[in-house]
Amino acid sequence: MQRSDRLIRLTKRLVEHPYRPLSLTDLSSELDAAKSSLSEDVAMIRQVLVEDGAGDIDSLQGAGGGVRFRAALAPSLRVDFFEKISERLSDTSRILPGGFLYMADILGDPDVLDASGRIFADAFHNAGVNAVVTVETKGIPLAVSTARYLNVPVIVVRREHKVTEGPALSIHYVSGSERRIQTMSVSTRAMPKNARVLIVDDFMRAGATAKAVMHLLAQFSANVVGTAIFMATSEPATKLIDQYTTLFSVGPVEEGKPPTVTSHETALKERISFKA
Amino acid sequence: MQRSDRLIRLTKRLVEHPYRPLSLTDLSSELDAAKSSLSEDVAMIRQVLVEDGAGDIDSLQGAGGGVRFRAALAPSLRVDFFEKISERLSDTSRILPGGFLYMADILGDPDVLDASGRIFADAFHNAGVNAVVTVETKGIPLAVSTARYLNVPVIVVRREHKVTEGPALSIHYVSGSERRIQTMSVSTRAMPKNARVLIVDDFMRAGATAKAVMHLLAQFSANVVGTAIFMATSEPATKLIDQYTTLFSVGPVEEGKPPTVTSHETALKERISFKA
Repeated sequence: MQRSDRLIRLTKRLVEHPYRPLSLTDLSSELDAAKSSLSEDVAMIRQVLVEDGAGDIDSLQGAGGGVRFRAALAPSLRVDFFEKISERLSDTSRILPGGFLYMADILGDPDVLDASGRIFADAFHNAGVNAVVTVETKGIPLAVSTARYLNVPVIVVRREHKVTEGPALSIHYVSGSERRIQTMSVSTRAMPKNARVLIVDDFMRAGATAKAVMHLLAQFSANVVGTAIFMATSEPATKLIDQYTTLFSVGPVEEGKPPTVTSHETALKERISFKA
Repeated sequence: MQRSDRLIRLTKRLVEHPYRPLSLTDLSSELDAAKSSLSEDVAMIRQVLVEDGAGDIDSLQGAGGGVRFRAALAPSLRVDFFEKISERLSDTSRILPGGFLYMADILGDPDVLDASGRIFADAFHNAGVNAVVTVETKGIPLAVSTARYLNVPVIVVRREHKVTEGPALSIHYVSGSERRIQTMSVSTRAMPKNARVLIVDDFMRAGATAKAVMHLLAQFSANVVGTAIFMATSEPATKLIDQYTTLFSVGPVEEGKPPTVTSHETALKERISFKA
């Protein structure tokens, strides 16, 4: 096989399976190349990625060695993303009765999902995440995209316990905005013990839902390494949870006025530093 | 820029944005290369993809021309996927009271989501799909993965009309298994008129839900080009909808016996032939 063909195959394999460990021994037989040539190829790909700020390749020790692609959003694309989406979110026509913001179109857009998933995964790549947890319904697409880039399963907390989930663990909690007692439950079979969990959700006001998820996850001795939110409200400034990460925040919403949306590109980059 | 670096960048760009049209003019300035060199690069990448059965690159006419990567699952990976997942699904311990099959773990597995999304997208790539529609909750991850590979938005039909969806159109229908009147609704703002829709869901028994979705979509003059299901029951053999596509089917489930799961790799490949 020519080097150019090998580079194409190797780039494709790495990029289409973010964060999946690939064994050099397997790649060597699959691409019919010596490990030393493969290592050179990987070094070339890595250099391009790093130069573009578009990710990195981690070297993995043990059992003949391996590699793993870590996706990131290149700086220029990142700036574009925050600018474009802030603008789309700042549209007066998005304001719904009760001070809610219509975001269903944005949360279903494949480019938005891809970029958000990459940004979240990049921010938490060194936190040793082994499950992404979300609460139905609107946060699921974001959670799926983030889980893809971290190569971990996505676990959906349900509002009602369904027969298809098998035995489930439920909790009650008081919702922040409606002051109502609500329920959430998670399949005991789906949720591993002692997992390192990243919580992903589309929206946070007071943080009651995220706090309830943490309470639910505590029953499984989970270690919550972070809470990644697409959009948080600036009020109340003090949330019910200590720490969270958000892509955007929105000020008090008034009908007829454009929402004041702030993007948190820098904050997001700086605040995250975990020990794996 | 060296050709090898350009091949790495171009492969990455194509693979990480399946089905997104990339303009040759943009690529030419971005990669600082003449269009003629880029065309040669694209031809090399295309040859590798086609040789591996791992996808294709479409050439797009107009405005300086463009290219678009169409993802597929290479035949050996496809066989692996159907074998492994059939085996996982055939586990006696998956049988839940009422003859349900526990699948939440499989439906949250990033590899399963990726492979299923690719298979569905590949099957319907020439159907001119411009939206993927699913019903909350369990089908959403599959729908997100399929929409990613078709580069179209995912639209979620809700069981209840929520304030954050804005104005919504609702219908009532009688569920197949429970003979109960149920509701589903979709945001009028999220759902475009005259869309070509692929319905994606995790499970189908009689097909009442899929039929109801079609009824709902008809209010938006949508053209449903297909219904892609992860798992269908073999009974009843006649469903309430005329046509559907399923990855797996399961025979009557009895407690204490392994479920009889059949995979439909060939049927899936053969039955789909649409005119774009």
